Amino acid sequence: MPQPQPTAHLALGVCDYPEHVSPSRWALHARQQRDLGLRYVRIAEFAWSRLEPRPGQFNWAWLDEIIDLIAREDLQVILCTPTAAPPAWLIRDHPDVLPVGRGGHVKTFGSRRHYDFSSGTFREHSRRITRAIAERYGSHPAVAGWQTDNEFGWGDTAQSFSPAAHAAFHEWLRERYRGRVDDLNDAWGNVFWSMEYTDFQEVPLPNHAVAEVNPSHALDFLRFSSDQVAAFHAEQIAILRECSPGRFVTHNYMGFFSAYDHYRVSTGLDFASWDSYPTGTLDAAREWQLLPPEDRLAYARTGHPDLTAFNHDLYRGAVPHSGRFWVMEHQCGPVNWTASNPLPADGAVRLWTEQAWAHGADACVYFRWQAATMAQEVMHSGLLRHDGRPDRGFHEVAALRPQAYPLGPVRTRVALLHDYESLWLINAQPHADGMNYWAQTLAYYRALRTLGVDVDVIHADQDLGRYALVVAPAITLVGAERAARWTRAAAQGTELVFGPRTAFRTPSGRTHEDGQFGPLSDLLGARLGLYDSLPHGLTQGLSGGHHARLWAESYEPRGAQVLHTYQGGPLDGQAAVIRSGTATVIGAHSDTLITDLLEERLHALGLHPTRLPDGLRVTRRAGHLLVQNWTQAPLTWQGHTVPACGSLHLTPTPTGGSR
Amino acid sequence: MPQPQPTAHLALGVCDYPEHVSPSRWALHARQQRDLGLRYVRIAEFAWSRLEPRPGQFNWAWLDEIIDLIAREDLQVILCTPTAAPPAWLIRDHPDVLPVGRGGHVKTFGSRRHYDFSSGTFREHSRRITRAIAERYGSHPAVAGWQTDNEFGWGDTAQSFSPAAHAAFHEWLRERYRGRVDDLNDAWGNVFWSMEYTDFQEVPLPNHAVAEVNPSHALDFLRFSSDQVAAFHAEQIAILRECSPGRFVTHNYMGFFSAYDHYRVSTGLDFASWDSYPTGTLDAAREWQLLPPEDRLAYARTGHPDLTAFNHDLYRGAVPHSGRFWVMEHQCGPVNWTASNPLPADGAVRLWTEQAWAHGADACVYFRWQAATMAQEVMHSGLLRHDGRPDRGFHEVAALRPQAYPLGPVRTRVALLHDYESLWLINAQPHADGMNYWAQTLAYYRALRTLGVDVDVIHADQDLGRYALVVAPAITLVGAERAARWTRAAAQGTELVFGPRTAFRTPSGRTHEDGQFGPLSDLLGARLGLYDSLPHGLTQGLSGGHHARLWAESYEPRGAQVLHTYQGGPLDGQAAVIRSGTATVIGAHSDTLITDLLEERLHALGLHPTRLPDGLRVTRRAGHLLVQNWTQAPLTWQGHTVPACGSLHLTPTPTGGSR
Amino acid sequence: MPQPQPTAHLALGVCDYPEHVSPSRWALHARQQRDLGLRYVRIAEFAWSRLEPRPGQFNWAWLDEIIDLIAREDLQVILCTPTAAPPAWLIRDHPDVLPVGRGGHVKTFGSRRHYDFSSGTFREHSRRITRAIAERYGSHPAVAGWQTDNEFGWGDTAQSFSPAAHAAFHEWLRERYRGRVDDLNDAWGNVFWSMEYTDFQEVPLPNHAVAEVNPSHALDFLRFSSDQVAAFHAEQIAILRECSPGRFVTHNYMGFFSAYDHYRVSTGLDFASWDSYPTGTLDAAREWQLLPPEDRLAYARTGHPDLTAFNHDLYRGAVPHSGRFWVMEHQCGPVNWTASNPLPADGAVRLWTEQAWAHGADACVYFRWQAATMAQEVMHSGLLRHDGRPDRGFHEVAALRPQAYPLGPVRTRVALLHDYESLWLINAQPHADGMNYWAQTLAYYRALRTLGVDVDVIHADQDLGRYALVVAPAITLVGAERAARWTRAAAQGTELVFGPRTAFRTPSGRTHEDGQFGPLSDLLGARLGLYDSLPHGLTQGLSGGHHARLWAESYEPRGAQVLHTYQGGPLDGQAAVIRSGTATVIGAHSDTLITDLLEERLHALGLHPTRLPDGLRVTRRAGHLLVQNWTQAPLTWQGHTVPACGSLHLTPTPTGGSR
Repeated sequence: MPQPQPTAHLALGVCDYPEHVSPSRWALHARQQRDLGLRYVRIAEFAWSRLEPRPGQFNWAWLDEIIDLIAREDLQVILCTPTAAPPAWLIRDHPDVLPVGRGGHVKTFGSRRHYDFSSGTFREHSRRITRAIAERYGSHPAVAGWQTDNEFGWGDTAQSFSPAAHAAFHEWLRERYRGRVDDLNDAWGNVFWSMEYTDFQEVPLPNHAVAEVNPSHALDFLRFSSDQVAAFHAEQIAILRECSPGRFVTHNYMGFFSAYDHYRVSTGLDFASWDSYPTGTLDAAREWQLLPPEDRLAYARTGHPDLTAFNHDLYRGAVPHSGRFWVMEHQCGPVNWTASNPLPADGAVRLWTEQAWAHGADACVYFRWQAATMAQEVMHSGLLRHDGRPDRGFHEVAALRPQAYPLGPVRTRVALLHDYESLWLINAQPHADGMNYWAQTLAYYRALRTLGVDVDVIHADQDLGRYALVVAPAITLVGAERAARWTRAAAQGTELVFGPRTAFRTPSGRTHEDGQFGPLSDLLGARLGLYDSLPHGLTQGLSGGHHARLWAESYEPRGAQVLHTYQGGPLDGQAAVIRSGTATVIGAHSDTLITDLLEERLHALGLHPTRLPDGLRVTRRAGHLLVQNWTQAPLTWQGHTVPACGSLHLTPTPTGGSR
Repeated sequence: MPQPQPTAHLALGVCDYPEHVSPSRWALHARQQRDLGLRYVRIAEFAWSRLEPRPGQFNWAWLDEIIDLIAREDLQVILCTPTAAPPAWLIRDHPDVLPVGRGGHVKTFGSRRHYDFSSGTFREHSRRITRAIAERYGSHPAVAGWQTDNEFGWGDTAQSFSPAAHAAFHEWLRERYRGRVDDLNDAWGNVFWSMEYTDFQEVPLPNHAVAEVNPSHALDFLRFSSDQVAAFHAEQIAILRECSPGRFVTHNYMGFFSAYDHYRVSTGLDFASWDSYPTGTLDAAREWQLLPPEDRLAYARTGHPDLTAFNHDLYRGAVPHSGRFWVMEHQCGPVNWTASNPLPADGAVRLWTEQAWAHGADACVYFRWQAATMAQEVMHSGLLRHDGRPDRGFHEVAALRPQAYPLGPVRTRVALLHDYESLWLINAQPHADGMNYWAQTLAYYRALRTLGVDVDVIHADQDLGRYALVVAPAITLVGAERAARWTRAAAQGTELVFGPRTAFRTPSGRTHEDGQFGPLSDLLGARLGLYDSLPHGLTQGLSGGHHARLWAESYEPRGAQVLHTYQGGPLDGQAAVIRSGTATVIGAHSDTLITDLLEERLHALGLHPTRLPDGLRVTRRAGHLLVQNWTQAPLTWQGHTVPACGSLHLTPTPTGGSR
Repeated sequence: MPQPQPTAHLALGVCDYPEHVSPSRWALHARQQRDLGLRYVRIAEFAWSRLEPRPGQFNWAWLDEIIDLIAREDLQVILCTPTAAPPAWLIRDHPDVLPVGRGGHVKTFGSRRHYDFSSGTFREHSRRITRAIAERYGSHPAVAGWQTDNEFGWGDTAQSFSPAAHAAFHEWLRERYRGRVDDLNDAWGNVFWSMEYTDFQEVPLPNHAVAEVNPSHALDFLRFSSDQVAAFHAEQIAILRECSPGRFVTHNYMGFFSAYDHYRVSTGLDFASWDSYPTGTLDAAREWQLLPPEDRLAYARTGHPDLTAFNHDLYRGAVPHSGRFWVMEHQCGPVNWTASNPLPADGAVRLWTEQAWAHGADACVYFRWQAATMAQEVMHSGLLRHDGRPDRGFHEVAALRPQAYPLGPVRTRVALLHDYESLWLINAQPHADGMNYWAQTLAYYRALRTLGVDVDVIHADQDLGRYALVVAPAITLVGAERAARWTRAAAQGTELVFGPRTAFRTPSGRTHEDGQFGPLSDLLGARLGLYDSLPHGLTQGLSGGHHARLWAESYEPRGAQVLHTYQGGPLDGQAAVIRSGTATVIGAHSDTLITDLLEERLHALGLHPTRLPDGLRVTRRAGHLLVQNWTQAPLTWQGHTVPACGSLHLTPTPTGGSR
């Protein structure tokens, strides 16, 4: 049976909802899609009520027709399991499918994702509809692959506080602690505030306590909820593998989303995808204090390069063996879901597409073909307008030459370590307003990007063998195994740079009995001195003229060398940056300090860092050096003039961490 | 039977709650009220527990006595149906009367308005108490008229999320869509996100969805809730008509309140009333971003003239055939319900009263006679203080000569179109922070006021025959009938000015399949180009040196003339203002541009606009030109010096749209 | 039986949770505690699940051992009733123990204080566990005293909205109004809005009304809830008295906490204690607008002296006959519960300890011995770090010489009056943003401290005989008895200074029928003129160049002398400050005016006020004059240089109100 073959260059595609328009336009749309140079059309994402209008009564005719029309234009289809939108009759017959919100109310039908991952009823229906659609289309020659469901966790639905979730949580705990409730009490430190349980059944859901719950309780509930998503996902993947051999399976994640462990939930996928809306991502910048307000305004029409880039690099690594990712929904005009939704700058769609490619995207699938003329997304743009005329994004896409963007791995010798469990712990108790996991991590990522370096974002427990420099900005959870792995890597010459709060926590969310750095103490040749939490407006001076803001941590060297000390204030004279062997720890949250230190390490490793002008970024892939200007005025770099909101393709020199 | 006769000039009155004070003071108060020059006393507003202290046991004696005392002073009585405050025993016996809030909890007894418009039980009791009071006093010679209930919707009670409301909503939908659920699915576009229903019973209340509900779902729930208020109201009106012939019936609305369609709820009234609290209205200015913070401070002691004026003009038009309105509660001192409640400036009570008259008020009824010595309103002022001495407002009222303010219609040839359904749609999806319906509408209203023009605020479907200039700042819902009516008006020479988002939506809340301007496309000779949503701090340049903020919309002319173009940014060179025949569309939200264009139109129509100084406003009624200075320093205009917080009465010249 | 004896000087102690660490460290810790110079160790605070791991099965062995180890080091034990943390099995068996939040949801197990003061079940278990621990250890020679429970009301638990609370509230009302519901209706003024009840059963809990409830309803619910806490407390105190003769009993309150009447709840205690976290208290400064933002930053590392001092003085007076208090939890490093938690400045622990002593503390018990390695408080510091090494605070404590701080009463002739019922009324209807009870009260307290005066904070009904100057900044509730008491004091020569809103309310929360000042009118020789509520940014001028902000109240003298008048604005020319006999009323909220007037009064009384530099404060106790510099740079005062964040001990001269 013939199967769709991947291209050797960037593929473009589009998310289409043909059921939203008159069937009389289907053929025209398919033709227009081909003419635009697209290769993929993603369909059927939320189409359950059209595929199964009444319980057990399927209507495939319309989808048959659409797939055939698409195939006739030599386009390939990406099909979705439609489970993100269970139909009204299913909810009517099985109200136990509905999730319960943190506030205790049942979330009702009327938007999407109104299902509980712990609902046995819904699991059954999820398998049933997945099998039905996979059996029908799994081997259709035009079907290239599958997207499971849609944006797991959107609308705060990764966690449910339902009776079903409560029962499943008890089961999960019983298994994790092998039936020994005292092990749970130990792991969580429940002697504190008399929180000891005599039976797993006594453990409450963590949503209605008098005040904050035990962070270990919260951590295990996040792990449990994440595992529920993963288990739900695995069921769909298994059916798709069975019924649709040779097709890829992926899921479309969201940027800066952290309600589950994306590495675990990605188990079994061919590669990860994500939905990239660069101007929308500025909302995350506001929520997580990633950019000062003036930068959010300066980049209002393009989004900030490093925020989008970080997510590209993150999802490239979410399925580690894949070495690639897709942008399954790609912005092509204004979005509708932020407080204000400005038009992208002229050239932004091209700028974003090229960036995605350079970061390892094998495909960019624009969202969406035509702006919806109804319902929640009526204010969201598409390649076509409400009236069917091409919108601005259409013309930018039409001008793209996909052949100019060859595929191939992104190669870099610099890795940044990421870990959802560390994120959950830090964000549960940030201790300093603004010093959350994302802000701490992005400070290091931005510094690397400012220095012109390509970065792999990888899981904290991944093999480090291929990297010269490994940066761990905020890995606060460090147990014996993780420490041993890093210690071995350091022994083999890997350069390691750590941020504050490193190895502050054990895997169950306690602190190490021997204090920070716990099992890393020998490697780092130091112990924690003090940590200071700085309110906005208060800074802590440092040698070299740097200033820490938000966080300043000092160390007591026990063999480590002191590279920087604090000046003035409660930390006066104490070590701010230490170095032991190939490991460096930066205790001060200071953009200039972080950049200086990383630059020095990169130089020492022969990775040729280069300070880039504000708003200019470089990336390398497949023999190309992509130089991008994200500002609204031309920039000059190394003799090249880069147009406003535009790119140059150069030949890479051996700089920036690439190999 | 003798009936009360209206006066030929402005009548003054007061809201009194004699049950709040000792009966020993009733006679004195009535005498004081007459001596103050008042004509009306509104009583019995919340007096249910005194009228019917136990189920079915009425106590009329006290009210008989009060009415007689008032009548003895030649004052007239306005009676209220006391339904805004059901007594405790009624709630005890019928807890199903209580409404359910958006958050899902039953709203309890303990303040007021604790009833559900959909409760059959309460409907019965509402009719019962209305009939009882109307039968007893309906023909009393001192009873001039009735106020139904009080401030429908206050305290977020226009919508209830109770089982009764849910059942009634299903019935309402079934009727609206004539039993065809697929018509509902089409109207709402429920194919989106698989939201299709197989039965009306499946439609949920819109309060607990995972994320925002379909705006068409929200729109129909607002229509339904509005119709429930209207139906409740109609029952009371019918009984009052039956039992109290020759008396007026009105309701006292609130400023900038939009939870129901005031035109529909006013059906059957003689005229509309509203409760005007000019300093309190600054709260709405903050909520809806109608004024910059510095203006809210500058007008802290008077309120802003245009905010009060807009509501006067709005309610003058709420019962279109009436051509008049009442201020049923009029501020006469500090209120108690905003965050800070400053004293009004010296002269403010007179300033406000004169403004109300000039805008068409036939009566100003001050709230309240004596400051309450108990309960929720203890911090609210009255004409008398807690201890019975006259307060500042008393003296300002005493100095008024009602005879100086003759009645008569407000005549203007300028109309501003208003539509609650357009409001609901825009405010459900404003797309740009600050660009809500009120803000968009007030920008045009303020511009007209700045130009010295009187304005009728009328329903978007009202006959336009009498107007030379019709301004439709934000009528986004335009179906075939509405479009036809406007097209006919334009053909007859009416000058039309439209704001952004005009004709973006169909009556069911979708967008037109042929895009904006849908059925107005021919009239306007253009189609939508792009709309841009500008975050605070980002502006879009325009020809003529103007700058758009918050919103910038461009057009593709198909016959229309381009009056202004955008300069720079994504809209560079595109049409910002177009004109086709007698219709102008202004796509840019720019105060200076709007004012310039309206001034030019007014000039062209011979309506003699005049640019007024900041804080000075003019209004015309019955041969008077009222010139008011809302600032705290004297202002000079056309050779006249207007004192701080004061007015001049001049003879109008043929300017400002009056006829 | 030998009983612990108090020391003649300041005692130091520590809060320890030995159950949080390995028993192998218990002996070492006790030794370290003695070596540090401590005298008291507070234990068993939340240890219920360790003392009674299963229903009725007690495990005393571990606590026996710890108490013996502590006794062996000649340290004394403070034991706690562990009721603030009921164990999981108790909740499992008796879910009716759980409180219900204002939002209507049951608060679950998982943090602490998950009990309802009105739960009969929990009352029984509280008595049972109290008796068990008191019987076992009540006469142990090392046990010096008891702390009941912990921080009553923490986590918003003083009020519950449960069925049990509702039933108890009905009973409480029935008793308060002696079974006459019409008395309740009169007291609350329920004729307003038809809120009259026909039976006590009809009175709802005040949490789910459509809008704000009657302030008298809210007031009585606060009184009821406060009485529930007091009744719960009294049960424990009675058992401790019975089973542990000769030991002190106290409770550890919180700063600026007002959910119950601390005077009533303290009935039966030997003295009050409170938990002092000076940097954490800046959170209260933000919440209550007590300091401008720049001061919150300037004092980020020390807290503001007057905020801490006020609470010291408040709790010294909470058990009036005691004349002393303890700091039962004293900050010794960063806290974990504010948005940002900076390190205390060098010297701050000493600074705070000395301040506490000077204000009358007999003991400072540091919180906590070792930082917790688990659960909610993992980010909170202790004297020891997570790894057991001494932290900064340890070294500051080690350097203290307790003998340098002799005990003895704080003697002053200046009192500031405080009343929780006035607080509840003002804060229920503040009428001006920022003008809450605490802000109004602190303005006067700060002024007195700026003038170098020591202050007793006492209940508004306490005997005033010993004071020369009595300041009542915000006693709005004044009934006949209170008025008579003050009138007698004035007649005996006591100088009285009142702030705005004095005597505005009756004991049931109404206003006086004869207006402000009601029963104080004769004493004050004036009536209320007007009160003005000033939004931030609007001020009201005054004679003498002062400016009122937030609040300006004028008076009509009827015999009183006018000391200051308003200038400009609606109050132009009216009396702002009046004086009648020995009573002064200050109607303008103006720091400079308040300070000038108090200074003048102090001078006149021979109490020698002295203007202190910013950040410098003086306090007197037991023959010492403690001069403290709370800034980060040295200050000079009267020829003495006071080091940054440091103190001088001088000999007091007869100044500052001391006697």
